[in-house]
Formats: sequence, structure tokens, C-alpha cells
Amino acid sequence: MYKISLITGDGIGPELSESAVSVLNTIHDKLDLKFDITKLSAGDKALSETGKALPDETVQTIKQSDVCLKAPVGESAADVIVVLRRMLDLYANIRPAKSYPHMPALRDDIDMVIVRENTEDLYTGKEFSLGDSSVALRIISEAASKRIAKYAFETAKQRDSMRKVTCVHKSNVMRVTDGMFAKACTDVSKDYPDISFEQMYVDACAMNLIRQPEQFDVVVTTNLFGDILSDESSQVVGGLGMAPAANIGDKFALFEPVHGAAFDIAGQNIANPSSFLLSIKMMFDWLGKKHNDSKCIEVGQKLESTIFDLVKSGVKTKDIGGDKSTSEFTKQITDNL
Amino acid sequence: MYKISLITGDGIGPELSESAVSVLNTIHDKLDLKFDITKLSAGDKALSETGKALPDETVQTIKQSDVCLKAPVGESAADVIVVLRRMLDLYANIRPAKSYPHMPALRDDIDMVIVRENTEDLYTGKEFSLGDSSVALRIISEAASKRIAKYAFETAKQRDSMRKVTCVHKSNVMRVTDGMFAKACTDVSKDYPDISFEQMYVDACAMNLIRQPEQFDVVVTTNLFGDILSDESSQVVGGLGMAPAANIGDKFALFEPVHGAAFDIAGQNIANPSSFLLSIKMMFDWLGKKHNDSKCIEVGQKLESTIFDLVKSGVKTKDIGGDKSTSEFTKQITDNL
Ligand SMILES: CC(C)[C@H](C(=O)O)[C@@H](O)C(=O)O
Ligand SMILES: CC(C)[C@H](C(=O)O)[C@@H](O)C(=O)O
Repeated sequence: MYKISLITGDGIGPELSESAVSVLNTIHDKLDLKFDITKLSAGDKALSETGKALPDETVQTIKQSDVCLKAPVGESAADVIVVLRRMLDLYANIRPAKSYPHMPALRDDIDMVIVRENTEDLYTGKEFSLGDSSVALRIISEAASKRIAKYAFETAKQRDSMRKVTCVHKSNVMRVTDGMFAKACTDVSKDYPDISFEQMYVDACAMNLIRQPEQFDVVVTTNLFGDILSDESSQVVGGLGMAPAANIGDKFALFEPVHGAAFDIAGQNIANPSSFLLSIKMMFDWLGKKHNDSKCIEVGQKLESTIFDLVKSGVKTKDIGGDKSTSEFTKQITDNL
Repeated sequence: MYKISLITGDGIGPELSESAVSVLNTIHDKLDLKFDITKLSAGDKALSETGKALPDETVQTIKQSDVCLKAPVGESAADVIVVLRRMLDLYANIRPAKSYPHMPALRDDIDMVIVRENTEDLYTGKEFSLGDSSVALRIISEAASKRIAKYAFETAKQRDSMRKVTCVHKSNVMRVTDGMFAKACTDVSKDYPDISFEQMYVDACAMNLIRQPEQFDVVVTTNLFGDILSDESSQVVGGLGMAPAANIGDKFALFEPVHGAAFDIAGQNIANPSSFLLSIKMMFDWLGKKHNDSKCIEVGQKLESTIFDLVKSGVKTKDIGGDKSTSEFTKQITDNL
């Protein structure tokens, strides 16, 4: 019995959470995998109701759970997710980008994953106003750089792919901080002689993600570059409709879609729940590995293939060219699980 | 008589400079626009020969010229171009991205320009190593932000387009520094009631440049985001083969291609000189406006249309699907000017 904490979020968050709960309940009943879901509030609504975007009870409940799911949060997103990533030391943000049949990717042979450092860089909130000027500290440590580099190489090792790690930085301009990051990655690469290693400047990477996205396997980069490049790579494979993310630490993990709260389409029952559901697939993988529970892994695979079989057969939401509502698409999934 | 200083660069730089000089000489003779070109050294070769990537004589000669052209420079590029941008206060880096006929753009109706702040952000070289950690200062000032915002709105005003400025930042995470940048742009926008103004987070922009690039007109952003987004947008319109850049200050300007020294194809006479030649087109525009010289403007237009007529008729270099060498393509241009 796994304890799942679920932040229901803002905008389209509540609809996606409903879809997620319905899929999880079906898995619980039909596939005999037991868990218990606790819904939690955080984000804009929590902020206006309690004065805190991330209420203390939410944090406490997350800490007592086995894993956390997070639907998108609105304008106060940084006060929720950036804080949780650092507080729970979820140092690896994993964002796969893969071309799937019947999705409008730039090419059909893309299969990469961005491994984004998730705890430092310009995300530590160390910023100061000095009258007419202001300064933010970009902090890079050797320990965090080595830790994420190791995670990237371990990821490459386990993937059934070309086994390459591309370290993305801007050390020609940020010689000290990105020099440190590049050196940490280079040092770690020596422990993985079977995995090829290359370095690329972030501007060249932004270009190459369009020019030859099929040449990437595992990309490891600092926090802010990872933020930018992962949104770009989701679009390269056809959009945020199918873009999941995992925030992983040594003890705990949090799963969320890459997309935001999309207030413009909230409450219309048209949002694509696939990014969130594919994040749940990543959750099952993580739970399965952590607890040596092959059932979890199987369930995750089943969930993923159910989603893609539907998309392939033309059962799709509006954003990717279909006509199914959020709840109709969800029902098709639960029926087919 | 305009004095042009020309940094011949590294890698493919010297070949491109030869192409540029040949085109400029033809313009001098055939189109009766007078100038005098001084070739200068800077970059990797200068560094290994003189110990300085940017020799003092080079700086002196540039300062005595009316305008500077810069071919790409190698690994020491930052020591040349970042220093020159700051030293000469070339605060606006202008990078147009336009779909042209017979170029492999993602769509055929893209016509945007990135206005990149060119003097601050993480480019001031203020970086420190603190043992196992390191820190870089991201500096944003109100004055530089307002100045670039004004430049962006003036650009939008003069363009024959949808008249929209999109301010790109990450103020949800960098509340102080990008908060200052966003506020400066918002303040300046009030002086331009006829131009619409929107804001976008940098990750969303990286995505939207692929998803709906035709919706952008003028994008204004900070230095490093501008670096990343302009490389991406060049690729969106078909690659770095046709991507010019202008570095503009109140008194002086420097023009260069967006692409780098491309050592892998150097010396083979296959590089596409178009990015550099289109930068020269931007130079003629700038000279023409500054000196109220309509001849310059005409010559620039003639140069641009000559390049695009050739590309349209299938006369192209290898990178964009043709078979012409650098010198053959250049000869076609000089013949047709
Ligand atoms: C909401 C925001 C703080 C967040 C980030 O920048 O990390 C988001 O864009 C993401 O990528 O998860
Ligand atoms: C060479 C490098 C320092 C430079 C930059 O980052 O500005 C280049 O990428 C550019 O965009 O002109």
C-alpha cells in the first residue's frame, strides 16, 4: 500500500487531478495495486485562502507520503515547486522527449531525455536590489554538479539507446560557474568509458534541438538551461500535451506535467490529461525500482501503452487534433486498462 | 568615404572576409559608394601570436573607424566580442529571423526580430570561486533595461509588421532582477500606445518559437536569453546560413554573422557567406540612417535582393541544399550587383 500525496493545483489542475484519481482508482481496483491518495492544496488558491502558497499541513502530509503527484499550479508556482524541490532535495529533474506515432513531432526518430539539475543555479532565490541595479546570484557547486552528472550517466546506462551524454553549458562566458559544471561532468564521464560524452554550448543546443534532435540521447544541464531546453524539446516532439516530468531525490520523488495551469482553457473539460498521466507512469517506474515491486513497473507500462494505443487509434484530445474531452479521454483509458 | 574596420576572425572567418571584401570592392567600383577597409586581427590566432585575443592596435583602429565588421572568432570569441560590446557600449544586439523563399523554415510567414540587451546580465564577467562552490553575478539595471526597451519599441514602430513587442524574462523565479527588467519594459510600453505589448516567460518563449513563430514581431530580452533564443530562432527559419546580427550603440555599431568559426569546414571553400553579407546589408542600413545617406540604404537593399534572387533561382551553397562554393557564390553576387 503506497501513500500518494496529490497537489490538485490551479487552472486546469483540478480537472487533471480528477482524471488522475479516476485512473489511479481503476488501477487500484482492476490491476490490484494498492494505494491511498490524499488530496492537498497548494498554489494560488491556497495563497488566497490561507496566505501561504505552500501551507504547512501540505508539506507535512507530503513528507509522510511515499511519493507526491503535483498538478500544475498558477502564478505562485515557484513558491510551491521550487521550494519543494529544494526542501526535499529532489535534485534531478527528468524530462523525456520522444516522438510518438500520430503526434506532430519535427521528426519521428527522436528519443532523448533532459536531466536538469534541480536545486541550485539562479533558482536559490538569492537576489538583491541595489537602487537602480539588481543582482541575482548564480550558484553552482561541485557536489551538486557531480551528483547530477552521475545521475545522467546512470540514466544513459539504463537506456536502450545510443548511450551518449551531452553536457550543455555556457562556459565560454561563465568560465568559473559553468567551468565548474563542465569539469564535474567531464570528471564523472571518466567512470563511464562505455558511454560517449560531448559538450555543447547552450545556444548551439537550442539550435540543434531543431536541426538534429535525433542526435541527442541524454542531455545534462544546469537548472535554468534545463527549464528552457525542456520546454523547447517538448515542442520539438509535438507539444506540451504529452510531456511528463519527474523530480527525483535519493529518498523521495515528485511527479508533475511540464505544462502550466493554462487558465485560458480551465473549467472547459478540454485539457489533455496525458502529460499528467505519463508523469504517473514515471511514478510507477520509480516506486517499482525503489520497492523492488515489479507489479508497479508493469502497471506503468500498461498505462503508457493504453494512452499511446488510444492516440494511435485517433482517440485524442483537441490540442493534438482530436475531439475527445478530458473526461471522455479519461474514460477511454479506464475502460481499456 | 566610410572607414570600415574588419576583424577577419578564425576558422571560416578569413574565407568569409575574403567574400565580404570582394563584395564591398564591387560595390565601391560599380555602385560608386566609397569606403576604405582595414583588416584587423583578433581571436585565437591573435591570442597565440600576440598573447592577446583583442590586441590594442585592433581596438585603436576600430575606434578610429566609422563602423566595424567582424567575421566569426574561435574559442576566444568571448574575449573579443563581449569585450567590444561593453567597451563600445553597443547595447542593442539585433537579430532578425525571417522565412525566405527556398529556405527550410518551419513556416513561410515568419518575420520577427530579437532585440537582445548586450551589455549586462551574466555577461559582465563577475564570477567567483569559493572553494567547492562558485557564483556568477547576474546584473540587471533599470537604465540598461529601459534603454533596450525603448530600442525595441522604436524598432517595432519602424517595422512594416504587426507592431507588437514581446518582453521575455523569467520573473516568476528571478523576481528582483527580471522583475526590474519586466517593469522597465512595461513602463516604456506606456509611451507607445499604438504598439501592443505582451510578456512571456523564457521557457514558454522557447516553446512558442516552434509552436507559433509567426506570432512574434519584436522580442526584447536580457543578454543570455537573447543569446539562446536567437540561435533557436535562426534555426526556426532554416539555419545559421542566413542569420545576420547587428550590435548597435548610440555612436558606433558592429556587424557580424550569428554563427561561429565552424572549424570543421574551415579552409574548404564551402561556407555560406550569406549571414556575413546580410550583416553588411544591416551595416549599410545603419550607415545610411546615421549619415542621412540614401545611397547606403539603396546599396543595402540591392545587396539583400541580389542574395535572395540567387537563392531563389537555386544558386546556393551546400548548407542550404546547393552546390556552389563560397567563392562561386560570391562571384555570382558580384556579377549580379
Ligand atoms: C513554474 C516554474 C517555477 C518552473 C521552473 O522554472 O522550474 C516551471 O517552469 C518548470 O519547468 O517546472
Ligand atoms: C561567442 C559568444 C560569447 C557569443 C555570445 O554568447 O554572445 C555568441 O554566442 C553570440 O551570440 O554572439
